[in-house]
Amino acid sequence: MKALVLADIGKIVLEDRDFDEVLGDNDVQIKIHSVGICGSDVHYYQHGRIGPFVVEAPMVLGHEASGIVIATGKNVTHVKVDDRVCMEPGIPNVNSAQTRAGIYNLDPEVRFWATPPVHGCLRETVIHPAAFTFKLPDNVSFAEGAMVEPLAIGMHAATKAGIKPGDIALVIGAGPIGVVTALAALAGGCSDVIICDLFDEKLAVANDYEGLHAVNIKTGDLAAKVNVLTSGNGADIVFECSGAKPAIAAVAQHAAPGATAVLVGMPVDVAPMDIVAAQAKEITFKTIFRYANMYPRTLRLLSSGKLHVQPLISQTYKFADGVTAFERAAAGYPSDIKIMLEME
Amino acid sequence: MKALVLADIGKIVLEDRDFDEVLGDNDVQIKIHSVGICGSDVHYYQHGRIGPFVVEAPMVLGHEASGIVIATGKNVTHVKVDDRVCMEPGIPNVNSAQTRAGIYNLDPEVRFWATPPVHGCLRETVIHPAAFTFKLPDNVSFAEGAMVEPLAIGMHAATKAGIKPGDIALVIGAGPIGVVTALAALAGGCSDVIICDLFDEKLAVANDYEGLHAVNIKTGDLAAKVNVLTSGNGADIVFECSGAKPAIAAVAQHAAPGATAVLVGMPVDVAPMDIVAAQAKEITFKTIFRYANMYPRTLRLLSSGKLHVQPLISQTYKFADGVTAFERAAAGYPSDIKIMLEME
Amino acid sequence: MKALVLADIGKIVLEDRDFDEVLGDNDVQIKIHSVGICGSDVHYYQHGRIGPFVVEAPMVLGHEASGIVIATGKNVTHVKVDDRVCMEPGIPNVNSAQTRAGIYNLDPEVRFWATPPVHGCLRETVIHPAAFTFKLPDNVSFAEGAMVEPLAIGMHAATKAGIKPGDIALVIGAGPIGVVTALAALAGGCSDVIICDLFDEKLAVANDYEGLHAVNIKTGDLAAKVNVLTSGNGADIVFECSGAKPAIAAVAQHAAPGATAVLVGMPVDVAPMDIVAAQAKEITFKTIFRYANMYPRTLRLLSSGKLHVQPLISQTYKFADGVTAFERAAAGYPSDIKIMLEME
Amino acid sequence: MKALVLADIGKIVLEDRDFDEVLGDNDVQIKIHSVGICGSDVHYYQHGRIGPFVVEAPMVLGHEASGIVIATGKNVTHVKVDDRVCMEPGIPNVNSAQTRAGIYNLDPEVRFWATPPVHGCLRETVIHPAAFTFKLPDNVSFAEGAMVEPLAIGMHAATKAGIKPGDIALVIGAGPIGVVTALAALAGGCSDVIICDLFDEKLAVANDYEGLHAVNIKTGDLAAKVNVLTSGNGADIVFECSGAKPAIAAVAQHAAPGATAVLVGMPVDVAPMDIVAAQAKEITFKTIFRYANMYPRTLRLLSSGKLHVQPLISQTYKFADGVTAFERAAAGYPSDIKIMLEME
Repeated sequence: MKALVLADIGKIVLEDRDFDEVLGDNDVQIKIHSVGICGSDVHYYQHGRIGPFVVEAPMVLGHEASGIVIATGKNVTHVKVDDRVCMEPGIPNVNSAQTRAGIYNLDPEVRFWATPPVHGCLRETVIHPAAFTFKLPDNVSFAEGAMVEPLAIGMHAATKAGIKPGDIALVIGAGPIGVVTALAALAGGCSDVIICDLFDEKLAVANDYEGLHAVNIKTGDLAAKVNVLTSGNGADIVFECSGAKPAIAAVAQHAAPGATAVLVGMPVDVAPMDIVAAQAKEITFKTIFRYANMYPRTLRLLSSGKLHVQPLISQTYKFADGVTAFERAAAGYPSDIKIMLEME
Repeated sequence: MKALVLADIGKIVLEDRDFDEVLGDNDVQIKIHSVGICGSDVHYYQHGRIGPFVVEAPMVLGHEASGIVIATGKNVTHVKVDDRVCMEPGIPNVNSAQTRAGIYNLDPEVRFWATPPVHGCLRETVIHPAAFTFKLPDNVSFAEGAMVEPLAIGMHAATKAGIKPGDIALVIGAGPIGVVTALAALAGGCSDVIICDLFDEKLAVANDYEGLHAVNIKTGDLAAKVNVLTSGNGADIVFECSGAKPAIAAVAQHAAPGATAVLVGMPVDVAPMDIVAAQAKEITFKTIFRYANMYPRTLRLLSSGKLHVQPLISQTYKFADGVTAFERAAAGYPSDIKIMLEME
Repeated sequence: MKALVLADIGKIVLEDRDFDEVLGDNDVQIKIHSVGICGSDVHYYQHGRIGPFVVEAPMVLGHEASGIVIATGKNVTHVKVDDRVCMEPGIPNVNSAQTRAGIYNLDPEVRFWATPPVHGCLRETVIHPAAFTFKLPDNVSFAEGAMVEPLAIGMHAATKAGIKPGDIALVIGAGPIGVVTALAALAGGCSDVIICDLFDEKLAVANDYEGLHAVNIKTGDLAAKVNVLTSGNGADIVFECSGAKPAIAAVAQHAAPGATAVLVGMPVDVAPMDIVAAQAKEITFKTIFRYANMYPRTLRLLSSGKLHVQPLISQTYKFADGVTAFERAAAGYPSDIKIMLEME
Repeated sequence: MKALVLADIGKIVLEDRDFDEVLGDNDVQIKIHSVGICGSDVHYYQHGRIGPFVVEAPMVLGHEASGIVIATGKNVTHVKVDDRVCMEPGIPNVNSAQTRAGIYNLDPEVRFWATPPVHGCLRETVIHPAAFTFKLPDNVSFAEGAMVEPLAIGMHAATKAGIKPGDIALVIGAGPIGVVTALAALAGGCSDVIICDLFDEKLAVANDYEGLHAVNIKTGDLAAKVNVLTSGNGADIVFECSGAKPAIAAVAQHAAPGATAVLVGMPVDVAPMDIVAAQAKEITFKTIFRYANMYPRTLRLLSSGKLHVQPLISQTYKFADGVTAFERAAAGYPSDIKIMLEME
């Protein structure tokens, strides 16, 4: 079948490949329809590695996907052939202690699409465990289905934050993950979400959502905005989605006494923290790694209309134009949010 | 000043009364603007008691109120004269162990408006602790300000439920508290909220809200509705707002494994529970008593537009017509939700 | 192999049976050493059913077991041949939503030893998933290993209670589950645990543990004891382990404002609850169904000496005397706590 | 009355002073019996400041105290004259939002003994709010009563950690706060607590407690110890009590997936954190500032014998020898844990 393969650093090719996969009793086979390009795909394309994960052999890219079931294993009951579905890309060892404890994303044996040496889903079909395959509601499109993967990160951050109804959140960083985190926080109970960044282009989409308050920290006054919305108390929740060291250092400044901060962004290096400032407010810092158990609830919010992600899809390319799509993604235009590939 | 006084069972009079109140250093004086009539006011009117609370002397009614600050004690800083405000009607002993622990609503010494022997706020002015007086945002009306009190019950229920983004809730009972609980659950992160009752008139208003799914349990199939919306899993959260024994007994039936049920309604008697059915799903039952720390977050959701309560105000009467308003409330039309009194 | 089989109501036989079991790649084979007799085993022996679970064919009894590994599947790494182990008797579908969410005990497909139609472990060897097989620390005996199963129920109750250091708990009911729950609560952070029952014989063992305060509710004053130990505040945690309706109805009476009650006992019928009394204190009721993820932490507390269960083993019989052991258990002496069977 | 006054940096004098204090209706007057010397007292003595808190006028030292009630205000009911008591040294504004929310320690207006400009309790008598004065159980000595203050920090850390029964904790730093945190963690439900430091003298006392495992990180292998006790999983809870930057950076290394770390120690400067390593295990970092609502539960654990602090009192001086006691404390012998002053 055709697959979009990272052949070498800076070199992606659309080529025919065979995959040595067998449909197990608990598996489904899916014809891929839509795949979003993630920052990690682009990072492997440009650098050949992310931290300890090094691409040492040609690898199929892509992990944000939706499609149609074309075959099912004999034990599979909750999806059937012709169902429109989206797929969770990380598969743990179901016999691990972490899986039994509900934190399967932390199982050290997780195999995750397009994280070397595991092939991704930018290909015609995949075989996948049915337990990690989720039926799309009728009013959720394939493109929205592919968006569930990045949304799940924001949903996981919002869930771990323990939002109480009417909390006010601050999201630092308006990249794709910052925006989906802000939307998840809003759908998840916040009355208002402030989102800040250095680039107006990134903030433009956020600003169009009711309930999101965009602040450019170069030209605006973030502290003033936080104070006005929170009556001087500080944000109940801070989502750090930039990975920028000055942002991390400043989390405590904008937070309310007793606030929770969720560290979503991954700094490239050890980051300085003002622990004493955090202690004075007893701030709790939660950290997240991908997500667990987020697909069904994300689909429910998409279906109910409380999560609206169509404005985040900035471009759609055909699969045949996959290389061009990756070149566009690699160019890094601030106004690009999510580039989507369609299989035919 | 004029006050609406419960003189005897079934007898309310509008009369002049003096109140022996002094403005303390931490107090404010408020000119009352709007007061909602609560089911408890009506119950005292009709029966002279609620459980252990017996009206033994004429008592001013009313505890859902907004108004304008007309004087402030010397220590008061967060509100000032001419501020539009709403007031939390229950005042704990601020030196109690419960207050220090954040559960001041459970302080046995709480004094609550219009709970005998404490006078309520259906009068021209009140003196109130500033700490329990909250400034209304500019876009929140006096009537909405008076609605914060019943909303706070729904918000407390929704907060204690620990809603996760995208949960699905079932609210049993579509009286005023059922409806505000459903709205709080929706604003608080649920993707969908099913609300059921025996009366179409009560369900009509709920049905007009996007995200609320009204089911008449006499004419509709509640279990089917729950199954469709939850993929057969059951509701993540059940809010029991009816106080009806059959409803309480059935909570476990509609709940998902690991679900939380919040018991909001107060049954008139000991209620049978199917504990074994609840154990099979490890359901957690939370109970609530009024609310604590809910006013600021409720005002934020009203101001942001995520809570919309105007449709719940079914009638507005002038204070001079207060007796008529109470007669209407006592008639108990199922389509009446909240009757509001305006002071002039 | 020899097995202790419930042939009919009231009839247990020790007989030779074949079991059609194959060692899978993720399984281990265990030579059984010690098996405790549980109240449920006795109940099936006497009544042939527990609620919806009906014994319709001869069934091997027993689910509280320890033993020695005699074979391992090829994927098994964390235990090896000759390891002394204990086994968790309930095996969920590892691909279920409940397993992924960390609540595998609530998976409707759980297969549990000696719950019809699943055979138990009162036989020479069993094949069991390695993931549910746990190595015994060197200082934990086989008998203590078999005790991990009932202890896990108390541990699950104590864990779900969310004990804070220095809380005071009340345990209602001093049967085997009441006593292990009290011990788990004490090891789990309570400063003191009051345990009450109607029978002095049951309370005798509890009374020998430092930190447990036994009260016979026929001859003693439970409310007074609670008041003295809690300075009149009430118990922070109440564990209802009796299943008795009057006990369930009285939970709120002995609890502190904001307390948590864990409903461990299974009443034979619908039980009346005083919901209004519970609401006045905002009591949270948690319910439990067996346990999940409790074996490793229970073994750690046994090994560290913080859980001491030797006094709970009232009798030990040889496997050959298994029928006699069950007759003794069925006689229901109040002073008997746990009857243990040893395989040779 | 006599008071121990910090007159200038490096200069403490025992002198006669008048205090302009009046017994309010909610206050008690206490004759001081025992006062422990805290590291913060010594720090003010040596440096005249701690961060933003600068001693600008002579200030009475001391905040860890017990004594006897000698007068009570007219509203006081829960303590009476001649009661033996200990006192919580930080008094919030009881009308603040933080107090109502149960986090009164985070009220910016807290007045705390011996934190400039507030005088401490190293004097003959004090007047104190009754709500923050706690009766000592008969079997708790005055010295133990004075120890409740530092213990409360460890108890607050242990409470915020959310220990589950049978968790394993690692405490980094074996100073007084490290040791009391380790004891609180053990009493609070841990099966075992590893405590590490650079100095054998500091570890010696810890090592005498059953359940505490002392490791000198210069001469021992901390990682190996953690691995053995946790079966390679890592510590469920890490308490960072050293404030040392390398220790903070290493927290994630020793923690289990899903672990909680409590940052108790206050680094003198911004501290580097390996956020990516923490994210890979989804570690939650909680920070603490003093404590709230910890005195009653600490007293219960002392009284029940689960907290045993007598070995931590390394020296006892008479009040008349207070200057000598401070010189000893300032010398900083690693084997000194708590120096206690007795009033006569």
